[in-house]
Amino acid sequence: ALAAPAIAQANPKITWRMTSSFPKSLSTLFGNTEELGKRLSEATDGNFQIQSFAAGELVGGLQAADAVSAGTVEACHTVGYYYWGKDPAWALGSAVPFALSARGMNAWQYFGGGIDLYNKFLARDNLIGFPGGNTGTQMGGWFRKEINTLDDMKGLKMRVGGFAGKIMERLGVVPQQLAGGDVYAALEKGTIDAVEFVGPADDEKLGFVKVAPYYYYPGWWEGGPSVHFMFNLDAWNGLPKAYQSLLRTACQAVDANMLQQYDWENPKGLIKLMGQGAQLRPFSSEILQACFKVSNEVYAEIEATNTEFKTLWDSIKEYRKEWYLWQQVAEYNYDTFMMIQQRQGTL
Amino acid sequence: ALAAPAIAQANPKITWRMTSSFPKSLSTLFGNTEELGKRLSEATDGNFQIQSFAAGELVGGLQAADAVSAGTVEACHTVGYYYWGKDPAWALGSAVPFALSARGMNAWQYFGGGIDLYNKFLARDNLIGFPGGNTGTQMGGWFRKEINTLDDMKGLKMRVGGFAGKIMERLGVVPQQLAGGDVYAALEKGTIDAVEFVGPADDEKLGFVKVAPYYYYPGWWEGGPSVHFMFNLDAWNGLPKAYQSLLRTACQAVDANMLQQYDWENPKGLIKLMGQGAQLRPFSSEILQACFKVSNEVYAEIEATNTEFKTLWDSIKEYRKEWYLWQQVAEYNYDTFMMIQQRQGTL
Repeated sequence: ALAAPAIAQANPKITWRMTSSFPKSLSTLFGNTEELGKRLSEATDGNFQIQSFAAGELVGGLQAADAVSAGTVEACHTVGYYYWGKDPAWALGSAVPFALSARGMNAWQYFGGGIDLYNKFLARDNLIGFPGGNTGTQMGGWFRKEINTLDDMKGLKMRVGGFAGKIMERLGVVPQQLAGGDVYAALEKGTIDAVEFVGPADDEKLGFVKVAPYYYYPGWWEGGPSVHFMFNLDAWNGLPKAYQSLLRTACQAVDANMLQQYDWENPKGLIKLMGQGAQLRPFSSEILQACFKVSNEVYAEIEATNTEFKTLWDSIKEYRKEWYLWQQVAEYNYDTFMMIQQRQGTL
Repeated sequence: ALAAPAIAQANPKITWRMTSSFPKSLSTLFGNTEELGKRLSEATDGNFQIQSFAAGELVGGLQAADAVSAGTVEACHTVGYYYWGKDPAWALGSAVPFALSARGMNAWQYFGGGIDLYNKFLARDNLIGFPGGNTGTQMGGWFRKEINTLDDMKGLKMRVGGFAGKIMERLGVVPQQLAGGDVYAALEKGTIDAVEFVGPADDEKLGFVKVAPYYYYPGWWEGGPSVHFMFNLDAWNGLPKAYQSLLRTACQAVDANMLQQYDWENPKGLIKLMGQGAQLRPFSSEILQACFKVSNEVYAEIEATNTEFKTLWDSIKEYRKEWYLWQQVAEYNYDTFMMIQQRQGTL
């Protein structure tokens, strides 16, 4: 067994390893991997330790969940949609195009049964997961040229993965697989035309603005992507009840903590990027409508044969209608008024 | 001293009492008071207990912070603006008109130094506090008649307290003090014209829709009000370091948990209220603009003589500009697209 036995003793000594899907340079993502370990260690006088390892230190960033499933390491910090190729239902715990924003995703996860539904699916791979961060709505990425119509997307070589890539492919985009370190040079040379990443705080560090200045929004494939802490189910089951409860509480705290950090750092990143010449551009309504239509076609195709996908997606969709009804009322109108003041310089 | 001494032993036995400012009937607010105790107890095998008491069981709802300051009880779950009469700076840790939305408030608190700044202020009263919930943008309340112009506000008898009442008073509203149980009858008889409360999930339980069907939004005085867990500073200082860390983590988790619960329950409450005949009405731009102007006048007056207020408010205002710049980009445009789909029935 991976875990120490659940002995009847307060704060038994347990040391786990957590492999992150992120490099240390992504300080908000990897920082919150470390934050979880810090919280657990402090609360148990150092007895419950989860040590963090960056992507590649133990296993590759995209092998994190597999390593935990196999029991090679006890825990990982990853994003469900990295594994959508194994089964598209993986993506539904994190983000799919035109799903919920961060607050909606959290509400569905913690109160709408989302955590349990996703864990029913993850249990097939001997995993249990809890939300472990959210970026908020991401940006649509960096483009060398303006993209105004659907025609402009045809033949566009874009570094974009997962579901979004599959959907864009139907609209003529040619998704590119490229190691992170090669993206800048490829953009500069024009080997690729565009790249999607995260949002201003992370993007600002990469310098794409110098070679692909058109910064599009919104990232319709990541309206409120949830990062996950995942644990080997045997290891989890071997934890004392007190540690299980502490771990869930710490995950929920760090989940919130990441969004708070992004919400603090993204505005500053955006201001910096604008100073560096970033040209903000909204995706046109024509493009968003087409992407929405194609996304729904893809969902319908998958649902026809994949029960796990259908169960999760139906649950999200049912709440999505209610969430975007209520969001139109108090919050949206408050934000709109405040944004008008921001534009008028009266804040 | 209030607290058990910090003895060198894992999970020492500590039992605190927490007095809530809320009645048990407000299940989201009081429910999350209890949630904190549950998390702490579970994580310490029952050794760190915080027992919850509803408003009035130990002290009145509006005396919660005073009781903790005096050391009568160790902890409370309350809202800073209840105490604005003692010093308006109290309100800045929770909400003042036209301040930050929930996510912005959280970002400022956890990463913008807001928690420490507010605690510097609270320390004068021997208190330390941490965010302990947020409702999201509240509704503007229930009105017997439509309110279209500033003239319609003149002489309006509205049950509204605190800062919002002070500001509305300058626009001719006559704020009313009324015990919770008397509000319905007063609205029915027309003794009062309007009442502000929280949002659909809470409001739906009170039945105001039957006697004051115009349901206005947004509650511009509560864009993202933060509820607080507050602790007697001596009691806090007496906690073992492990319990301090655990308590902060549990507060952050429950802080998020409350918003998650509201975001799940408010849409359902809204749908119920619409079925009961609620007439949704936005405050007119004329009214919002006038309220914003008067709010800024009030802030300028207070800042002129109150350094603590100025320090906190300057810090919030600086971030508020950045937050509402960034919010215009990815999140707002994503939400807008999704709301259009909701209205078109395509979600």
